Amino acid sequence: MPPLGAPARAEARATLSRHAHELLVSEELGALLEELRPFEESHDRESFEASVVRVARRDYEKATRIPPRLRAELTRQASLGYRTWLEAREANDYAIFLPQLERALELVHEQVACFDPPGDPYDVLLDDYEPGMKTAEVEAVFDRLKAELVPMLASVTGPVDDSCLRGTFPPDAQRRFALQMLAEWGMDADSWRLDDTVHPFASSFAPTDIRLTARFHEQDLHGVLSCMHEFGHGLYERQVDPAYTRTPLAHGVSSAFHESQSRMWENLVGRNLATWRHFYPRLQEAFPALGSVPLETFHRALNKVERTLRRVDADEVTYCLHIILRFELERDLLSGAVTPRDLPEAFDAKMREYLDLQPPTPVDGVLQDVHWSEILFGYFPTYALGNVVSVQLWQRAEADLGDLDAQFESGEFAPLREWLREHVHRWGRVFEPTELLERAAGGPLDPEPYLAYLRRKLESLYGAAVR
Amino acid sequence: MPPLGAPARAEARATLSRHAHELLVSEELGALLEELRPFEESHDRESFEASVVRVARRDYEKATRIPPRLRAELTRQASLGYRTWLEAREANDYAIFLPQLERALELVHEQVACFDPPGDPYDVLLDDYEPGMKTAEVEAVFDRLKAELVPMLASVTGPVDDSCLRGTFPPDAQRRFALQMLAEWGMDADSWRLDDTVHPFASSFAPTDIRLTARFHEQDLHGVLSCMHEFGHGLYERQVDPAYTRTPLAHGVSSAFHESQSRMWENLVGRNLATWRHFYPRLQEAFPALGSVPLETFHRALNKVERTLRRVDADEVTYCLHIILRFELERDLLSGAVTPRDLPEAFDAKMREYLDLQPPTPVDGVLQDVHWSEILFGYFPTYALGNVVSVQLWQRAEADLGDLDAQFESGEFAPLREWLREHVHRWGRVFEPTELLERAAGGPLDPEPYLAYLRRKLESLYGAAVR
Repeated sequence: MPPLGAPARAEARATLSRHAHELLVSEELGALLEELRPFEESHDRESFEASVVRVARRDYEKATRIPPRLRAELTRQASLGYRTWLEAREANDYAIFLPQLERALELVHEQVACFDPPGDPYDVLLDDYEPGMKTAEVEAVFDRLKAELVPMLASVTGPVDDSCLRGTFPPDAQRRFALQMLAEWGMDADSWRLDDTVHPFASSFAPTDIRLTARFHEQDLHGVLSCMHEFGHGLYERQVDPAYTRTPLAHGVSSAFHESQSRMWENLVGRNLATWRHFYPRLQEAFPALGSVPLETFHRALNKVERTLRRVDADEVTYCLHIILRFELERDLLSGAVTPRDLPEAFDAKMREYLDLQPPTPVDGVLQDVHWSEILFGYFPTYALGNVVSVQLWQRAEADLGDLDAQFESGEFAPLREWLREHVHRWGRVFEPTELLERAAGGPLDPEPYLAYLRRKLESLYGAAVR
Repeated sequence: MPPLGAPARAEARATLSRHAHELLVSEELGALLEELRPFEESHDRESFEASVVRVARRDYEKATRIPPRLRAELTRQASLGYRTWLEAREANDYAIFLPQLERALELVHEQVACFDPPGDPYDVLLDDYEPGMKTAEVEAVFDRLKAELVPMLASVTGPVDDSCLRGTFPPDAQRRFALQMLAEWGMDADSWRLDDTVHPFASSFAPTDIRLTARFHEQDLHGVLSCMHEFGHGLYERQVDPAYTRTPLAHGVSSAFHESQSRMWENLVGRNLATWRHFYPRLQEAFPALGSVPLETFHRALNKVERTLRRVDADEVTYCLHIILRFELERDLLSGAVTPRDLPEAFDAKMREYLDLQPPTPVDGVLQDVHWSEILFGYFPTYALGNVVSVQLWQRAEADLGDLDAQFESGEFAPLREWLREHVHRWGRVFEPTELLERAAGGPLDPEPYLAYLRRKLESLYGAAVR
């Protein structure tokens, strides 16, 4: 987009979101949903018929709290804020972004006031990404994670040599390898695409139209790992029951569940030694420089634990700390304990406390993420919850399917994929996240499996007992 | 898009077009427009206030003829038809496309029936692209063009050597040159972009967001000419009065007027010897192989007249014949004189008659254009009308500005650009095309200036008297 297109786009998006919101909150829809109550009650709760009415009513009732004017204003500000964030990052100057964050926070307060929440005001924000989840539950999980992860990180000693991941890896060869790998995992050419982008993401317009994007840098293999991550998002949408297409049921149920899928394919499958026993010979063929690198060295490098300034560069141990920091700051911004003006200082203080790092400039610290510019308050926690959920699901899948490592080693990824379809993906939004987790993983949200998984992994990689 | 995404996109587009149509034909809007009659009448006809109400009412009244269901069905079929056309072209098999064309034609008949036109049913289709224009006017212009162009083409003798346009022209150097040229013509980096595509087009989302696309082939310079064409479209949208933004006035008034602008910059400016007196040294610098090619040779090559199978490859003389052929076939399809089943044969017969060429396969003939697959019946004539209008405007601009060639030769393109802004662009949709033409060019639609321009050009290029 040319620079002067930004205000026009903000207006266009605001108009579209207002019209979409007006359709959603129309009295006509409300009356139809009332009329359908007996129909809904005459069907099983998990049936398509009952679920589509139930979920549409939930969406309707929630949407009616927000006036179309505010919906449009949130969209407009998100669009303008994003553009200003780009400028602020370019100039590495938080002051450029500050007025936008102040305006965004005003709108967030307006949004929260629409619900007049009986409990924590942050519940309102969280509910947009994790329906039904309460801030107190997140806080309990995060307190436990923080209590374990900070000392766990301190106990990691001895450098890991990851030099094999740096070198010269022609982007076309990376793309070919990634496509081969994802094809074996279940990416079919009729319904998926992989294209280039600056910041990778997955999007889908139908279960038969899944678009992944990637960025392959010649000097490292991060692009391949990012493909595995986006595949997880894509697979979720691909495997929603096709009968739900074009209904409110037709998507993944929450951000944490979505992230559990991307993290599972990136980390639990993609950073798994067994997976690479299968794929590493082909990777070596694609990149002859890896020919002399033993599999175990490559695998250790993939799993290197290291404090980083940037959330997006974080490993499995430090990632949650980056998130907890943001969750706490969002709550402080909402309560007024931290003002937008004081945010950079508060950000840096927590970076020092949790990660023992001082961001040298705003771009390495408070300006590094797009989320606050786009008013995505409440989104960050779902990244860490996704890690937690991924291992809860994994445990149950292993209990059902037997030794997944043995399967991966012989190139069998279909059992895991089909287990996910059966227990998670196909249900779309039929169950709320808590119920889906109970059904699929057999329990409530629980950080212990994730912590135990990290401990095992660190012990095997660093050979030392990890707290 | 992955192949299985096509049906989903067709449904999504149909839904969007139905909602947009429902907003446009709402009783609320109708009542507001009635309420605004006194307001409209209290302002000058050319004022923003009166014009925005008048044009909105015209759009509203026309839209109310079409039921939202039909609007959605036209959109859905256009989307599906396009996809099938791609397949038919790939297979070079008209039979694959035939059922889609039959369905499209059914919908076109439904559309025409909504208006129950007193005159020619084709008027209904034409009006979507050329508001107020009647088929009989087009027919009169086209009969005159055909009567002149067929013998004019026959009188062109002697081959033109255009080998200098073929060779090795690195795409990046073509892009750099095109951007330099368009910057001199008025493309500013804050409001315009130029990106890559398969089939070039121009689009705009606001007067400050103009996007051109191009495809540069290493073996020829067509991509540069195509940039000049798309620039004409972009400039029109760029120069609409910014006060009209986000109103029904905020776009070019018709397809023929739009095409008059793209043709003017591509042909009257871009294939002009004076323009190249200014730019050729830089082109030679960019492509050293042209260093030994005299300017006049290059200019003759750019203006080579030659019968071609493909409309998009046609020169200024043959282009209108390709269009007239399509206009006549569209009318025959609408009247039933030609059935979709017989279309390939009818297409080839007219190709032989007007251009003395027999398309060897459907892809070179009836399947070459996207328009019928997307139900754009009524669009084709505006391409030829654009040629006609471009020279009518040019004559008037020269009368006002003096010797344009002399200006171009010294790199002055601003006077023409500003003349177009003042007399055409800034008005957006304030005047209907006929009135705008009368005001800007001083007369009604008239093919004679275009024919005279072609005769002069052919005489200078081929050195012989051309009928």
